Amino acid sequence: MLGTRSKHIQYATIATPMNPLKLDCGKELTEVRLAYETFGTLNPVKDNCILITHALTGDSHVGTHADEEELKGWWHDFLGPDLIFDTNKYFIICSNILGGCMGSTGPTSINKETNRRYGTEFPLVSIRDMVNAQKRLVDSLNISCLHAVCGGSLGGMQVMQWAISYPDMVRAAIPIATTPRLSPQGIAFNEVGRRAIINDPAWNRGNYSTDSFPSQGLALARMIAHITYLSDESMRNKFGRMLRNTDEYQYSFAPEFEVESYLNYQGNKFIKRFDANSYLYITKAVDYFDLEKTYGSLTKAFSETNAKFLVMGFSTDWLYPIYQSKTIVSALQKAGKDVSYCEIDTKFGHDAFLLEYEKMAPFLINFLQNI
Amino acid sequence: MLGTRSKHIQYATIATPMNPLKLDCGKELTEVRLAYETFGTLNPVKDNCILITHALTGDSHVGTHADEEELKGWWHDFLGPDLIFDTNKYFIICSNILGGCMGSTGPTSINKETNRRYGTEFPLVSIRDMVNAQKRLVDSLNISCLHAVCGGSLGGMQVMQWAISYPDMVRAAIPIATTPRLSPQGIAFNEVGRRAIINDPAWNRGNYSTDSFPSQGLALARMIAHITYLSDESMRNKFGRMLRNTDEYQYSFAPEFEVESYLNYQGNKFIKRFDANSYLYITKAVDYFDLEKTYGSLTKAFSETNAKFLVMGFSTDWLYPIYQSKTIVSALQKAGKDVSYCEIDTKFGHDAFLLEYEKMAPFLINFLQNI
Repeated sequence: MLGTRSKHIQYATIATPMNPLKLDCGKELTEVRLAYETFGTLNPVKDNCILITHALTGDSHVGTHADEEELKGWWHDFLGPDLIFDTNKYFIICSNILGGCMGSTGPTSINKETNRRYGTEFPLVSIRDMVNAQKRLVDSLNISCLHAVCGGSLGGMQVMQWAISYPDMVRAAIPIATTPRLSPQGIAFNEVGRRAIINDPAWNRGNYSTDSFPSQGLALARMIAHITYLSDESMRNKFGRMLRNTDEYQYSFAPEFEVESYLNYQGNKFIKRFDANSYLYITKAVDYFDLEKTYGSLTKAFSETNAKFLVMGFSTDWLYPIYQSKTIVSALQKAGKDVSYCEIDTKFGHDAFLLEYEKMAPFLINFLQNI
Repeated sequence: MLGTRSKHIQYATIATPMNPLKLDCGKELTEVRLAYETFGTLNPVKDNCILITHALTGDSHVGTHADEEELKGWWHDFLGPDLIFDTNKYFIICSNILGGCMGSTGPTSINKETNRRYGTEFPLVSIRDMVNAQKRLVDSLNISCLHAVCGGSLGGMQVMQWAISYPDMVRAAIPIATTPRLSPQGIAFNEVGRRAIINDPAWNRGNYSTDSFPSQGLALARMIAHITYLSDESMRNKFGRMLRNTDEYQYSFAPEFEVESYLNYQGNKFIKRFDANSYLYITKAVDYFDLEKTYGSLTKAFSETNAKFLVMGFSTDWLYPIYQSKTIVSALQKAGKDVSYCEIDTKFGHDAFLLEYEKMAPFLINFLQNI
């Protein structure tokens, strides 16, 4: 597993040779474990559980544990006593997705049939496969009903899939900054990210070691993606056309604008914590997610859901634009479901769902209280 | 020179050891030629010339010559008898930019000091350097006054620079789909494109041959850039989530969505006609273009211009968004200049300036007639 990880990570074996996990691609996995973390306390009747689903490069470490203050969770500000995900009230679960590289089974795992890392022999997984794996994790904790499932971006895709696949387990669903099917522009950005990795000779068709991996390609994939997480406006506010350490152009090809340095820094940081093959698998799962294709129409997709929905979109998010959030809302309305819609005015683009605590909190707190 | 080229290309030597071209970077070039093409006929008083400036990967072949119908110009639809750039009326010049790879001096040229291709020993050139080179070309044709200078994107930057640097030569200036300074988002996209090239081992610090060049990196750079030329809407209309040749997912990492195939096709087509080092140099020139930085303020930049301006922007262009066109207009107004603004409603994003003939024609024809 990559990077410094929390000591609070737990592992659940959710598939075995006797109980394999069947995948949408037609293959099955006979050994699957999920890494997960919990926050707060499960109440005696086990009905205060919120499942949080993470985004593309997230992990189980959604919040910060009291004895590990230096290891901030990716939704650190959102989770804790009296915060949105109030650990005095709720029992929070977050698991690393199937296909990930943060403790759950994925292409970095050892294939017991070959005693080598799977690499690209790992089967392609779908969002539904990820959700089916999580379902087994929740079952293993003897929790039969989730107070809510909540997540942003790829996490929001999982939220919708949860409400559709397990309608009797999900009381409330909160898909944030997400889409019922990725736009061709989104597919295009994922494809160029994958090309960056695959072009790197160190990728070697997915057979690389932890010592020699496609670091340049993975860093470039992250840099490309990072642009799509910000907005034109937030980049102007944050970087403008500032140069590093100077007012003068250097007339060379080394990064010199602040925005270039920042992207290169983000790329180099990313390769310390993420696996290149996982990046290929997870982006492909995102590309494949298409509730209309899978269920015939979006309204049909939601027809059997029982959850109360809160859909949240962000004004400057151009990767998962608000018209996509509105498509979810319309389909739920057409299916006669209980749905609220919240559009947050923000400068921060897609990343807003990680940043806009003050604007999101009133809606989320109120919604979670009134389920 | 790359690709199949028009037999109508002419060459002008615009710098020699006796008359070097001084560059913004402080260096000078002692051997410079520009490749150019002309269309229509120069009138006896030599006042019917329109200089068209090309975009990032364009060239001198803006129109189609009557005896070369198969070699369509990049503004084929715009240039010819009774079209916007009416060859019955106007004498059109278009030259490949300094630093380019379509016949003008650039990193693919032979450095006479070493008898090798310049590669990255070529000095960094600015938009102003490109314009200064074009000025010498126009001088060499004994033309002292341009009826208009017109171009889109990087071409629009050249247009503004022309009006600023040579106020007495430019009667009218038509900057289209452009900006007085590239946004940090634009710099970011250029930087990831450059990284794609530089990451390619075949780039070899710029020392590569025509047989073994960084084709994968250059193709990827083009794929990334191509996304920014289209709009979310135009991609949905053109590709949607269509798969190639099938309705079923292939569960592999080969391109399978139409949009992926299209981008890969565009990338592979591009490497047959463009040079990787030129791509680095030209994107860097675009990043450096900043009229505010160079002249103190945008209003100051335009203060000495004598041209009549028509600024044109496109509603769905998110690479050079219309607020940037409006910034140009405001500065010109503040400087007390004659400026018209035309905002074209379109689905086609940045590429609209190459496509929206019907919508652009009335404004351009009328403007060109009334200079």
